[in-house]
Amino acid sequence: MTDVAIVGASGYAALELIRILLRHPGARITVATSRQGEAPRLDAVHPSLAQRIDLACTPFDADRLAESARVAFLALPHAASMAVAPLLRQRGVRVIDLSADYRLKDPSVYADWYDHEHTDAPGLDEAVYGLPELYREAIPAAGLIANPGCYTSASILGLAPLVAGGKIERSGIIIDAKSGVSGAGRSPKLATHFPECNENFSAYSVGRHRHTPEIDQVLTEAAGPGGGPVEVIFTPHLVPMDRGILATIYAVPTTIPVERELLECYRSFYAACPFVRVVDHLPATKDSAHTNFCDLTLRVVRGRIVVLACLDNLIKGAAGVAVQNFNLMHGHPETTALL
Amino acid sequence: MTDVAIVGASGYAALELIRILLRHPGARITVATSRQGEAPRLDAVHPSLAQRIDLACTPFDADRLAESARVAFLALPHAASMAVAPLLRQRGVRVIDLSADYRLKDPSVYADWYDHEHTDAPGLDEAVYGLPELYREAIPAAGLIANPGCYTSASILGLAPLVAGGKIERSGIIIDAKSGVSGAGRSPKLATHFPECNENFSAYSVGRHRHTPEIDQVLTEAAGPGGGPVEVIFTPHLVPMDRGILATIYAVPTTIPVERELLECYRSFYAACPFVRVVDHLPATKDSAHTNFCDLTLRVVRGRIVVLACLDNLIKGAAGVAVQNFNLMHGHPETTALL
Amino acid sequence: MTDVAIVGASGYAALELIRILLRHPGARITVATSRQGEAPRLDAVHPSLAQRIDLACTPFDADRLAESARVAFLALPHAASMAVAPLLRQRGVRVIDLSADYRLKDPSVYADWYDHEHTDAPGLDEAVYGLPELYREAIPAAGLIANPGCYTSASILGLAPLVAGGKIERSGIIIDAKSGVSGAGRSPKLATHFPECNENFSAYSVGRHRHTPEIDQVLTEAAGPGGGPVEVIFTPHLVPMDRGILATIYAVPTTIPVERELLECYRSFYAACPFVRVVDHLPATKDSAHTNFCDLTLRVVRGRIVVLACLDNLIKGAAGVAVQNFNLMHGHPETTALL
Amino acid sequence: MTDVAIVGASGYAALELIRILLRHPGARITVATSRQGEAPRLDAVHPSLAQRIDLACTPFDADRLAESARVAFLALPHAASMAVAPLLRQRGVRVIDLSADYRLKDPSVYADWYDHEHTDAPGLDEAVYGLPELYREAIPAAGLIANPGCYTSASILGLAPLVAGGKIERSGIIIDAKSGVSGAGRSPKLATHFPECNENFSAYSVGRHRHTPEIDQVLTEAAGPGGGPVEVIFTPHLVPMDRGILATIYAVPTTIPVERELLECYRSFYAACPFVRVVDHLPATKDSAHTNFCDLTLRVVRGRIVVLACLDNLIKGAAGVAVQNFNLMHGHPETTALL
Repeated sequence: MTDVAIVGASGYAALELIRILLRHPGARITVATSRQGEAPRLDAVHPSLAQRIDLACTPFDADRLAESARVAFLALPHAASMAVAPLLRQRGVRVIDLSADYRLKDPSVYADWYDHEHTDAPGLDEAVYGLPELYREAIPAAGLIANPGCYTSASILGLAPLVAGGKIERSGIIIDAKSGVSGAGRSPKLATHFPECNENFSAYSVGRHRHTPEIDQVLTEAAGPGGGPVEVIFTPHLVPMDRGILATIYAVPTTIPVERELLECYRSFYAACPFVRVVDHLPATKDSAHTNFCDLTLRVVRGRIVVLACLDNLIKGAAGVAVQNFNLMHGHPETTALL
Repeated sequence: MTDVAIVGASGYAALELIRILLRHPGARITVATSRQGEAPRLDAVHPSLAQRIDLACTPFDADRLAESARVAFLALPHAASMAVAPLLRQRGVRVIDLSADYRLKDPSVYADWYDHEHTDAPGLDEAVYGLPELYREAIPAAGLIANPGCYTSASILGLAPLVAGGKIERSGIIIDAKSGVSGAGRSPKLATHFPECNENFSAYSVGRHRHTPEIDQVLTEAAGPGGGPVEVIFTPHLVPMDRGILATIYAVPTTIPVERELLECYRSFYAACPFVRVVDHLPATKDSAHTNFCDLTLRVVRGRIVVLACLDNLIKGAAGVAVQNFNLMHGHPETTALL
Repeated sequence: MTDVAIVGASGYAALELIRILLRHPGARITVATSRQGEAPRLDAVHPSLAQRIDLACTPFDADRLAESARVAFLALPHAASMAVAPLLRQRGVRVIDLSADYRLKDPSVYADWYDHEHTDAPGLDEAVYGLPELYREAIPAAGLIANPGCYTSASILGLAPLVAGGKIERSGIIIDAKSGVSGAGRSPKLATHFPECNENFSAYSVGRHRHTPEIDQVLTEAAGPGGGPVEVIFTPHLVPMDRGILATIYAVPTTIPVERELLECYRSFYAACPFVRVVDHLPATKDSAHTNFCDLTLRVVRGRIVVLACLDNLIKGAAGVAVQNFNLMHGHPETTALL
Repeated sequence: MTDVAIVGASGYAALELIRILLRHPGARITVATSRQGEAPRLDAVHPSLAQRIDLACTPFDADRLAESARVAFLALPHAASMAVAPLLRQRGVRVIDLSADYRLKDPSVYADWYDHEHTDAPGLDEAVYGLPELYREAIPAAGLIANPGCYTSASILGLAPLVAGGKIERSGIIIDAKSGVSGAGRSPKLATHFPECNENFSAYSVGRHRHTPEIDQVLTEAAGPGGGPVEVIFTPHLVPMDRGILATIYAVPTTIPVERELLECYRSFYAACPFVRVVDHLPATKDSAHTNFCDLTLRVVRGRIVVLACLDNLIKGAAGVAVQNFNLMHGHPETTALL
C-alpha cells in the first residue's frame, strides 16, 4: 500500500484522480492540499465524494506531506508545479506532475510559450515524459514524471506510428483538435460560462496553443534523427460537452498509402499497449469517455492520410495516465484501477 | 421614431432588447451604457451584433442620456436600477426597468427578500407592473414600468385565470419551475460554469427565491379581496440549456375540476392577449424559445389541477415584454417587432 | 464465480450492466442475447466495449442459457420479460428482471397501466421487489427479482422515511420528477431525436406515467396498514442530458415539521444502506451520475416538506441496483463492483 | 405580394422558411405540402407555429400548386426534388430547390455521389446555383435555383477570395467542418438519437460526404481556367448542438501570406455582400446562429493559411439563403425579412 498526496485537489483532474485512486488496491490518499483558506473537507469541494473519503484539505506543506506520503500527484497550474516539485524531490517524494512544467526539455522553448522563465533546471533534467506508450522503459525508475497534456496525448498517439515508421512528411502535419470544456479547468471565465459555450462551437488560440511545442518535441524524438524537426499546425476547438477530445489529423504520406496496411502498422506498433485501441470504425469521444482508452483509426482520402484519435481529456489525458504511470512506477499491473 | 437608451448593455437581456429594437420601425437606439471602462463598441461586447449597430458604450450620465433619448430600458442588477431611475424620471425620461427594484409594492417586503433598503419610495408609487396581460390599462400612461421577472411571468400567467375565477384554493399552490441558464445572467460563477451545470440538473434557492413575493403579490391582487393572500411554494431548478422556463403548477380546486371547461376559461381570459397561447398539447420550452409567446395548458390529475406554463426567459420573461410595454406606451400595435 | 447472462444486451441499461459486471470479481458474463439477426459481437453493438469483452450476441434460447449461466439479467421491454422469465425459472436460473413485468403485485393494475394482460401469475407470486433499502431481508433467497423503475426508486427512497414514520399525509403527495433522456431507451423516436429534445424541457405523460402505481404500491406497503392507500401525483419531465433523475417531492406534514429532525430521521432510516447519502446541501444529479448512490435531502417551505432525491437512472435506477441485488443474492458484500 | 408554396413542410429547413416568410412583407404562404397522410395542420407538425399560421398540409399536386402559388420552395430529400421540379417548371412556377438535385452540373458526378441517375437534364441546364455572393448576376432571372448545401456555403465563402485571387494552391486544401445536429434532418436515426450524440463528438463520412463535389465544382469555377480543378479534402463532424457550422480550412499559399493583407482582400471581395461579415476575432457559431450571416476570418500559422468560416446551417445554409434568392428574384432588397 502506497500513501499518496493530491496537491491541488479542487480541480477536475484531481477529482478524477481521487475517484480512480479510491478503487486502487495499492494506493491510499493521505493528503489533499488546496489553496482555499479554511481547510474544507474534500467532499465539500467535490460533492460527488460524499461518504467516499474522510479527508480535509490542508495548505501545502512539504515537510508534512513528505511524512505522510511517498508519492505526490501535482494537479496545479503551470508555474505552481515547479515551485513545489523540487521541495518534494528533496524530501524523497516521487512526483507525478500533471501540469506542463516539466514537459518541454528546452527551458527557452518553455519561456517562449509560457511567458515566464523556468526555475527548476534539475527537475527538467530528471523528469521523464509520462506517456507510457512511448516511454515505458524509463517510467518505472523515474522520480519525477511529466504527465503529458490531453491534446498532446491524442495527437502523439495518433501520429507516432506514422512518424516513427517514416511514413509521412515531417512538415505540413495538420492537427485539427476538439475538446470538451472540462479541459479549460474549473475556474469560471466568460468563455466557459454555460450560456456562452453551450450551443456554440469555435476555435481558439489558433497557432498559439501551448501543447504545440510539446507535440513537436515528442514527435521529433519519435521520428528519429536525420529528417529534421516535426512541426505541426495545431488548431484547438471547444465542443459544448464536458469531456472528450477528438483529433483529426492530416498528413502527407511519403509513399502511396494503403489503409489496411497502415492500420496493421498501428496495431503492431501498439500491440503491447493495453489502453490503445486501433479500431476499424470512426471512433466517437463517447466510446472512450470515463475510460483510460485512446481510440484510433485512419482513412486515406485523396492521397492524404486522415487519422482520428479520441480520448477522455480528464482520464487518458490527465488522471488516468497519471495512475498508469503510478502503476508502472510501483510494479502494479498497468491496468490496475483503470478498467 | 422614438430614441431609446439601453442602460446596462452588456448582459443577455440587453442583447435581446437590442436585437428586437433593431427590427422596430418606431425605435432607434441612441445610447448604450456599460460599466466597463473604455467605451467598448457594442459589437465588441456582443460579437453577434457585428455590422448590425454602430454604437459605443458610454458610462451612464443622466443628463446626456436625457438629451439623446426619451425612453430608457434599464437592464441593470437590482439596487443599481433604483439608483438611476429617479435621475431619469426627474429629467422626463420614461423608464422601463428590467430589474426587480420596482416590482414589490411594499418596501419592507423588498428589504426582507433583497437584503437592503429601498431608496426610491416615489418611484415605487409611480411604478406600474408591466405585465400587459393583467395591467394593460395602466401601462400606456406609465412613466416607470416595473418589468416582471421571468419565473414570475410564467407563474402568474399560468395561475391568473384560476385565482381570478376563484377556482382554486389560495394556499398550498406549488410552483415547480425550471429555467435555462441564461436566467442566471452573464457574470461567470462556479454554479454556471459549463462543466458544472452541463449534464446536470438541480434545484436551488428552495423556498428562498426572490420571485416568490412578486408572485404572491400579483396573484393576491388578481384573486381580489376577501379570500386572504395567495402564498405559493416556489422551487426553481436549473436546466442545462440556454433559455426557456417551464413552470409546473399544482393547485387544489375549489370545485370538481373539468379539464375542457378550465381550458375554455383560460382561452376566454386571454382572448385579447396576442402573446398567450392556450394549447391542448403539453408545451415544450423550445416551442416558445426566441419568441414573445407564453404557452399554457393544464391537466386534471387525481383531483388536482396541474398547469404547465412555458416562455423564453429572455424574451417574454424580459426583453420581449419590455418592448411589448414600449409598444403600449407609444401607441404601436402590441406585436410590433415581436413576431 | 457465477456465470451470468444478459438477455437483451443492446440497450443502455444492459451496457451499464456489462460495464459493472466486467469489474465484478464474482461474476462472469457467458451469454448475451439480442433480437438483432446476425449474432453481432457485443462490441459492434456497443463500440465502447471494444477489447473489453469477446462475446457474440445470440438469439435467446432458454436451454442453452440454462446450460451456460446460473443468473439471468433481463434487460427487455415489458411484456417480453414475462415471456422468457418462466422459461428460465423452470430451468433453475435465477432471474433479475429490469423490466416492469413483475413489479405490480395486482395483475389487474398491471393490465390497466400496461394495456395488456399479465401472463405469468406464478412469477408474480414468486417475485421479490428488488429495492434493497426496503426489502433487504427477502432478496437473498429470491429466485425472481423485480428490479424497480428509475423514477420509482428516487421517489420511494425520497418518501419512505416519511410515510413509514407517519410524518406526512398519505394523499396529496406531489412528485415532480425530471429525467435525462437515456431513460427513454435506445430506440430512436422523434421525441428523443437530438434537435427535438436538446435545448428543450417539457413534461410528458402527465398523470399517466406507468411508474405511478408502482410508487403507490410500495409506499402503501411502507406506510403500513390502517391509513389507507398512498396515492401520488406524479409528473415526469425530460431534461436535455444523458442521465440522472431528480425528484422534487412535496408533502403535507402531519405535525409541525422541523428540518433538522427530519434529516436525522432520514439518516437513521438509511443507516445500514451504503448507497443512500442523506446530505445537507441541495443534491445535483451530476453528483451521483455514473454511481450507485441515491442522494437525498429535504427542506421545510411554508409548512410543506420538500424532499429532493437524485440518482443515476441507468445505475441506481437500473443496472447498479440489479448488481446490488445480485450481490445480496450471492453473498457478496453489497458494494462489490459498485464503488 | 407573391404567393409561395412550401413543398415538404415538415422538416427543420421548412420550419425556418416559414418563420422567415411570416415576416416577409412581399410573400404569402398559400400552400404547404407534406407526405403525411391526413392533411395535418402546420402547427400540429410544428408546435412552435401555434397561432402563427392557419394552413393545413396537403399532398403535393402540381396543378393545384400552380394555381395558388408563383414560387415553390422545395424542402424535399434529394431525388424527390427532381421528380417534382419539372412539373412545376412546366406550369410556370419558379422553383427554389433546397435539395442537392440541381447543384452538380455533371449528371455523372451526381450519379457517382448520390447513387442514382439524374432524371431531369433540362432542369440541370436551367438551374442557377443560388449562392448570391458568387452568382448575384444570374439569380434574378432564374426559373430554377439550386440552393447550396450548408457545409458548401461555409466552405466556398471561406475559400472563394483565395482561389479567385490565385492566392493558394488548388490541391491539398483541407476543410475540417463541424455541424450541429439539425443538419442531419428531422427523421429519427440512432446516430442522432439524443443519448448517442449528446456529450459526444465524432467525424462521419470521412472522404465520402456529398458536399465534396459541390465544393470542388464551384471553387473550380471561381478559380478560373488554366490551373486545373480544385479538389478538397472534406471531413465533416457532428457537434452536440442544434445548429451552426464551423469550417476550419487549411490552404497552402502561393506566396508568403500576410494576415492583414489577406483580410483586406476578403473585405474587398465581399464589399457588396450584406450577409458576409469579415471579422478580426475568431468567430463562434453562436454569433451567427438564427441569422443569415456568414462570419469569416483567417490566420497565418507556420506558413499555412487557416480560414475560419461560420454560419447557421438552417438559415444561411438553407432557408435564409433561399429567401435571399427569392428577394433577388423578385426585386426586394436583399436583406428583406432576413435582419
